[in-house]
Amino acid sequence: MQNDEQEIRDLVSTWMAATKAGEVEKVLSLMSDDVVFLMPGQPVMRKSGFAAAARAQAGKDAPKFEGTSEIQEIKILGDWAFMWTKLRVVVTVPGSPHSMTRAGHTLSILKKENGKWMLARDANMLASV
Amino acid sequence: MQNDEQEIRDLVSTWMAATKAGEVEKVLSLMSDDVVFLMPGQPVMRKSGFAAAARAQAGKDAPKFEGTSEIQEIKILGDWAFMWTKLRVVVTVPGSPHSMTRAGHTLSILKKENGKWMLARDANMLASV
Repeated sequence: MQNDEQEIRDLVSTWMAATKAGEVEKVLSLMSDDVVFLMPGQPVMRKSGFAAAARAQAGKDAPKFEGTSEIQEIKILGDWAFMWTKLRVVVTVPGSPHSMTRAGHTLSILKKENGKWMLARDANMLASV
Repeated sequence: MQNDEQEIRDLVSTWMAATKAGEVEKVLSLMSDDVVFLMPGQPVMRKSGFAAAARAQAGKDAPKFEGTSEIQEIKILGDWAFMWTKLRVVVTVPGSPHSMTRAGHTLSILKKENGKWMLARDANMLASV
């Protein structure tokens, strides 16, 4: 269980670093095929929608995402887990002097598939600061 | 597991009915003592904060909450479970001709304590419609 928790912490670190670096395929490899993303005021997003949005943004003019995640709780339930984080993301568009900060909580469900933890459900409650 | 799922569906029905009826103590009996409510743009709310807010609103001039919950998914994980719902709540203030509708998704963690399912973590992504 100690290892599982560390592996989930590593998943979060890898996710944040890959997002910052614009490594779309890497981020996609960290989520299950049946992942569901839930956000306020927006329709449900699934893996294909996430991939399309992320690829559309990729490239040299891509916005930069710099995130800080503070994990508040991880609870391992066999091959499933849930996690609550406080997340802060600063989005910068190249060439623009302005950045946008979004902050708030996430509640995520993770599952272990073939020995590897993956994001499976994600409730994102970030709001503009 | 069939029974657990039905018990969680009953918990949701009871919650909605008690909220509509303004039965604060009943609603409080459906959540664990360490429950955490997460919402966009708001600080974390715990059971004492929920109770204070609900009691402050109670009384004959209390706003009426009429909700419709469509359960999208329930997954039982032993004595824990997660649930994803689509929720729509119409809030009416007595004497006001207007009502406010909020709609969106919730992602909740439930746990079974002494044989009874309770809400334990709740991510609320409702937005004004």
